[in-house]
Amino acid sequence: LIKKIKYGLVGSTGRLGREVAEVFSENDHELVFDYSIEGETRKEIPELIIDCSLPQVLPKTIAFIEEFKVPLIIATTGLSESDFARLKSISAKLPVVQSYNYSIGIQVLLKLTEMAKEKLNGWDIEITESHHRFKKDKPSGTAKMISNVLGKKVNISSLRLGNVPGDHTIAFGALGEVLSISHRALSRRTFAEGIYKTAEFIITKKSGFYSFNDVLA
Amino acid sequence: LIKKIKYGLVGSTGRLGREVAEVFSENDHELVFDYSIEGETRKEIPELIIDCSLPQVLPKTIAFIEEFKVPLIIATTGLSESDFARLKSISAKLPVVQSYNYSIGIQVLLKLTEMAKEKLNGWDIEITESHHRFKKDKPSGTAKMISNVLGKKVNISSLRLGNVPGDHTIAFGALGEVLSISHRALSRRTFAEGIYKTAEFIITKKSGFYSFNDVLA
Amino acid sequence: LIKKIKYGLVGSTGRLGREVAEVFSENDHELVFDYSIEGETRKEIPELIIDCSLPQVLPKTIAFIEEFKVPLIIATTGLSESDFARLKSISAKLPVVQSYNYSIGIQVLLKLTEMAKEKLNGWDIEITESHHRFKKDKPSGTAKMISNVLGKKVNISSLRLGNVPGDHTIAFGALGEVLSISHRALSRRTFAEGIYKTAEFIITKKSGFYSFNDVLA
Amino acid sequence: LIKKIKYGLVGSTGRLGREVAEVFSENDHELVFDYSIEGETRKEIPELIIDCSLPQVLPKTIAFIEEFKVPLIIATTGLSESDFARLKSISAKLPVVQSYNYSIGIQVLLKLTEMAKEKLNGWDIEITESHHRFKKDKPSGTAKMISNVLGKKVNISSLRLGNVPGDHTIAFGALGEVLSISHRALSRRTFAEGIYKTAEFIITKKSGFYSFNDVLA
Repeated sequence: LIKKIKYGLVGSTGRLGREVAEVFSENDHELVFDYSIEGETRKEIPELIIDCSLPQVLPKTIAFIEEFKVPLIIATTGLSESDFARLKSISAKLPVVQSYNYSIGIQVLLKLTEMAKEKLNGWDIEITESHHRFKKDKPSGTAKMISNVLGKKVNISSLRLGNVPGDHTIAFGALGEVLSISHRALSRRTFAEGIYKTAEFIITKKSGFYSFNDVLA
Repeated sequence: LIKKIKYGLVGSTGRLGREVAEVFSENDHELVFDYSIEGETRKEIPELIIDCSLPQVLPKTIAFIEEFKVPLIIATTGLSESDFARLKSISAKLPVVQSYNYSIGIQVLLKLTEMAKEKLNGWDIEITESHHRFKKDKPSGTAKMISNVLGKKVNISSLRLGNVPGDHTIAFGALGEVLSISHRALSRRTFAEGIYKTAEFIITKKSGFYSFNDVLA
Repeated sequence: LIKKIKYGLVGSTGRLGREVAEVFSENDHELVFDYSIEGETRKEIPELIIDCSLPQVLPKTIAFIEEFKVPLIIATTGLSESDFARLKSISAKLPVVQSYNYSIGIQVLLKLTEMAKEKLNGWDIEITESHHRFKKDKPSGTAKMISNVLGKKVNISSLRLGNVPGDHTIAFGALGEVLSISHRALSRRTFAEGIYKTAEFIITKKSGFYSFNDVLA
Repeated sequence: LIKKIKYGLVGSTGRLGREVAEVFSENDHELVFDYSIEGETRKEIPELIIDCSLPQVLPKTIAFIEEFKVPLIIATTGLSESDFARLKSISAKLPVVQSYNYSIGIQVLLKLTEMAKEKLNGWDIEITESHHRFKKDKPSGTAKMISNVLGKKVNISSLRLGNVPGDHTIAFGALGEVLSISHRALSRRTFAEGIYKTAEFIITKKSGFYSFNDVLA
């Protein structure tokens, strides 16, 4: 349906990076630029760059998109406020999609959380997230997104268990009842497919700072 | 805050009936009419009637409110379509509030379910409910309410365990992720408190068929 | 079945204390000694003392049992190592039952945890506990008991939600699977009933330091 | 560590079959015999046969192992009593490992269930299982294994959601508490790795009917 994309991938050797490469390859897109701890491979100038690496790589990624003048999809978690400032600044010139979670279900969970927050005023709130033992940041970026929607400081419990792809729960508790909203990723492939959808979206944009929610809208 | 209510209770010896009597008594309301398997006690004409009994008692309850010309709060589960027809017919003359669940959280869960249903088109849906071993109907009235919101036939799993007051979960599943919304009643008192709120609402009405959602609005 | 017990209660105004008084009263036992933040009531010398208060009250409780020469059932959580030392010391002369949790299910959960620990060597372990917003200690005493069974330092996540009586989960995670064992108290009455069973057990003992597991054996 | 195995696979195009082929290939074993809905491929006589297909294929599989005189690992679910009889009969001559679930965690769950059953006499029991929407049998073979351990008829709730690899829960409920034991497969690869372990076990055996528990012992 969509044309073949020549894309670049930062963090291609990581867990998510490998899934992204697989999903894009199955859809006949071509990896023409690759940057990871194993070095840089530059076959052609990419039409867009996807970053699934770590926050410390961000300056390098920004240098790449400035050089190539192409859109950026950033899936790195654990970004600082100054990282966000840099991404927003570059988005005046080039399109940037940033999300800590590229699954449809998490976007719906965020909307449900917003609705629940309004209706359950005064209830206690607890966020819990479980991820694989290799995850570097704590709490997860998605837990921070949920916390942002709640608009106040909420206790976040972080569990690290085997290779759990990612579970998130927001629980609201009153004297007499508990309401909770949960999301469970069944595999990292889900996130790679969301990034794939995002590529189709961003490739036609000129500039601007977008969320995955904009992609789905 | 609100004036002392002289109320009637149908099903006063049941689990929920006893909780209702306790909550109303703590708030200085007076039980003046009582109908249960142990017989009828009529001290005074009640200002409203609460029915926490079983579907087969409904004709008796309707006879009472027609005799007394008072509002009805009905919390009985397992009602048939003809039961609903009778309640709606009487509501042309007298105010009736009907709900299978008088907790705030379940009302919010129903709204969240409606939103999720719209956004997760094509996902598999499963409803699960757990209740105490003494519960007579299966599936629970609340599970039926959730099913109605979904607007289509959905598989409902019913568990009967010890004296669980009432758990409900709706799970939406896709290839890659599961989103779920859960409610857990911590005690039956929650429902009695919802019925208490409903009494404050219904006592000023002249006629009409209301849901617990109308009470909370 | 068992004879009427004249018992003493330390912490009679607390959540658990009130449940204990109710269960004992339903079984025709008599509260003859009562110590709480509201003061001391001494009708008669009790045959045993139950302490459901706070760690800071322990010296007072020990003084009582030394004065009366009677058994102690201690249900206080958050005890320090020196508190335990004091209890063990007094148990040379008088019988003491100590547990952070007087439910049957938690005793079984501890045994299952022990078995799982042996068979799932090298798996990640996470403990989660949820309790009512009024709970003073964190993590719960029961979570500490679970941690002790595991015999090593384990991450404990503590959630505080409405008036949840007490949930505990131990999750074991490997690359490919997660096994978990969970307990949920449906009401505080469960604990009061366990304390009641313990009273029947301890009243015949001369001295010694016992766990609730000894009571059930 | 172990020598290169030339193996045969029945049901090679199914979900589990593909995972098995991948795990064996990563470990340098060679698929020399392949039977599926797409036909039969016979490069060499295999040293053992793995069947991940459907019950109706069993006669064919038995014919293969009788022809080749090799061990069988059977992972097919939904077997009938006569299927079991046939497998046991052939196991007098050739080694057979049969399990409805080749994960370590499920073996531990079965042992925990056995212990819990003994200690929680008289408690209500409920089994729940969730699997992907493509699963053909209901309830799952693993749920039946759990039911067998319990030694009595227990209600089993079956949920079908997206591509959930496999969740199982046994809940025990009393008046006051609920204890539950849960297992969640994070991917089908877990089962393929269990089958791989089983291959190392069975290749040295002469005859006999074995369970996956025997493999792990």
